Amino acid sequence: MKEIKVQLESFDYPIYVGNGLLADNEFFLDSVKQKLMGSKICVITNKVVRSLYGEIVLSLFSEFDVCFFEMEDGEEFKSLESYQLVIDFLVGKRFDRELNLVALGGGVVGDLCGFVSATYLRGVNFIQIPTTLLAQVDSSVGGKTGVNHPSGKNLIGSFYQPSLVVIDPEVLKSLPKREYLAGLAEVVKYGLIYDEIFFSWIESNSGALVSAEKAQISEAISRSCEIKSKIVAIDERESGLRAILNFGHTFGHAIETVSGYGTWLHGEAVSIGMAMACSISVKLGMLDQQTEKRIVAVLKSLELPTNASNLDSEDIERLIDTIKLDKKVKDGLMRFILISAIGEVSIESEVPEQNIEEVFRQYIAN
Amino acid sequence: MKEIKVQLESFDYPIYVGNGLLADNEFFLDSVKQKLMGSKICVITNKVVRSLYGEIVLSLFSEFDVCFFEMEDGEEFKSLESYQLVIDFLVGKRFDRELNLVALGGGVVGDLCGFVSATYLRGVNFIQIPTTLLAQVDSSVGGKTGVNHPSGKNLIGSFYQPSLVVIDPEVLKSLPKREYLAGLAEVVKYGLIYDEIFFSWIESNSGALVSAEKAQISEAISRSCEIKSKIVAIDERESGLRAILNFGHTFGHAIETVSGYGTWLHGEAVSIGMAMACSISVKLGMLDQQTEKRIVAVLKSLELPTNASNLDSEDIERLIDTIKLDKKVKDGLMRFILISAIGEVSIESEVPEQNIEEVFRQYIAN
Repeated sequence: MKEIKVQLESFDYPIYVGNGLLADNEFFLDSVKQKLMGSKICVITNKVVRSLYGEIVLSLFSEFDVCFFEMEDGEEFKSLESYQLVIDFLVGKRFDRELNLVALGGGVVGDLCGFVSATYLRGVNFIQIPTTLLAQVDSSVGGKTGVNHPSGKNLIGSFYQPSLVVIDPEVLKSLPKREYLAGLAEVVKYGLIYDEIFFSWIESNSGALVSAEKAQISEAISRSCEIKSKIVAIDERESGLRAILNFGHTFGHAIETVSGYGTWLHGEAVSIGMAMACSISVKLGMLDQQTEKRIVAVLKSLELPTNASNLDSEDIERLIDTIKLDKKVKDGLMRFILISAIGEVSIESEVPEQNIEEVFRQYIAN
Repeated sequence: MKEIKVQLESFDYPIYVGNGLLADNEFFLDSVKQKLMGSKICVITNKVVRSLYGEIVLSLFSEFDVCFFEMEDGEEFKSLESYQLVIDFLVGKRFDRELNLVALGGGVVGDLCGFVSATYLRGVNFIQIPTTLLAQVDSSVGGKTGVNHPSGKNLIGSFYQPSLVVIDPEVLKSLPKREYLAGLAEVVKYGLIYDEIFFSWIESNSGALVSAEKAQISEAISRSCEIKSKIVAIDERESGLRAILNFGHTFGHAIETVSGYGTWLHGEAVSIGMAMACSISVKLGMLDQQTEKRIVAVLKSLELPTNASNLDSEDIERLIDTIKLDKKVKDGLMRFILISAIGEVSIESEVPEQNIEEVFRQYIAN
């Protein structure tokens, strides 16, 4: 088991990464129990995840009074409507402030459960047990919670930290292959934004990562969480550095929104977005073409998409429009995270709209 | 002008109290401007308040790009539905994180606007300009934001601090008398929970307060804000001391909920609730009857109600039920803030349900 400490200004919390942690009662007594309040736990999950891990979580929390709330699965259910359903459920159960909310699932469950935790009775204790690779390396760490708005992703939410994150890579065995691979996009991102050595490690271990070898995947998760924690510790509320975590995401969000939630998995859209960010960096003379090729090759070796073949030139206007609504647009200026070398990114606030359009044209079907 | 500093762990913010502040351009340049971000302001208000103070606020913020959102007036509109309307409006305007949200109105506007500020794009700058006495002495200070749920008040929300509170007592001139008087209930509360000298001052100035003499009302507001700030500084997230601010509120909320929002003004319900809290304190041998009489006399001299004449014995069960859902109930135990002397309250966690019922019977019509 590996412990990663997330050190924030006001408090610290641990991320535990280890194969078999969810079935480990000793681990529960040593590390989890002290982070729980009172006697009541409500687990927010979905049907599939509950059927797979509901029992194991029940026995982990056997001393507690546990109930489950099953939400619908899918990004389109990360909505204010779902939020309201969970709140109604909690109010109906009359839970007081001593409640522990546990997110058992992927990013949708985690983000929604986090936002409920932040706002039910003005905040209750929150535990993350992410069950997808994407959630394990990204959304469960760092305290961003929230829901989507019909006009854009994550427009509603708050910063609210969990008191504990438990990551058991063994749960990834049951994850659909496509979803697992999509999670690797965020792993690649950590290498690109922060750590050339980690990127090279991914490059040489891509085969083992694609086939989800235990040792490699565990290492990839730990290293990703370490990098994310460091960045979040420096800038909890995204006033500066933290923005680099959004590398590839501005394009990615636009592609997700315009394609309609559900067409691309988030990680797939980020993979395309990172390829686009590399391309624009080359266009602006920041990155050499060879490095761009190397990055795209790694994405491809992980079986990730690198262009938005579902979109065509008629979608360009909406893509640009969506980017303008993105929260990373400051005072109407086009603000992007660009890359100058592997492990080195920077925020460029004056990217011409024309370049954005060119790159979109290049990365869609026609 | 008086400046009161709210000193929190992570940052400080000022409350300015002064007659005519809203029309004072020098004050704006010296003290307000530095607290604003970017160039955009959205003022959340209602029709009546806008018609009274919209122009004055527009000229105060004349250098900025200002728009207004008018919400419906009344506690029943402090709801998730109204929240969603404001969010849709902001998304429609494509405001980015550099937005300043200004709450211009009473507690309903302030609490809703605060919750929107806390959660739009995970948090934007928030300014309070309270226009009711209740909001000036209570809800605008301390960072509690949120909306009601059909099953109870303030069940949804978060702690989110404004960067500035501007209190101009002159706006109270246009406040309906009944609403103004209701606000005095919270002023009395500060004396009761924290400051015998302030209580005595209220006692000797009750006539001037009822007729809203400028000097007295300004003093009452400043002193109330000072006391609240001190308590909030010690315990921002209500893990301990801050609970004493809820003196009278557990009963008050129950009376409001069971009567239906709109029957009693919040301050009126709190006045009844404080009388009930005194009564139960006497029953439990904590408070002498003479002090109880003195307190009730002051409430009456301020023309505040001290019993819930609209309710009868058939409502008792729902009153008790509502209290059980109240967030101040810990693990099902009845937890109340009781009073042992003027300026001295304490949290008693084991009040027998029977006593609660007795007091309710005593304070309703039949």
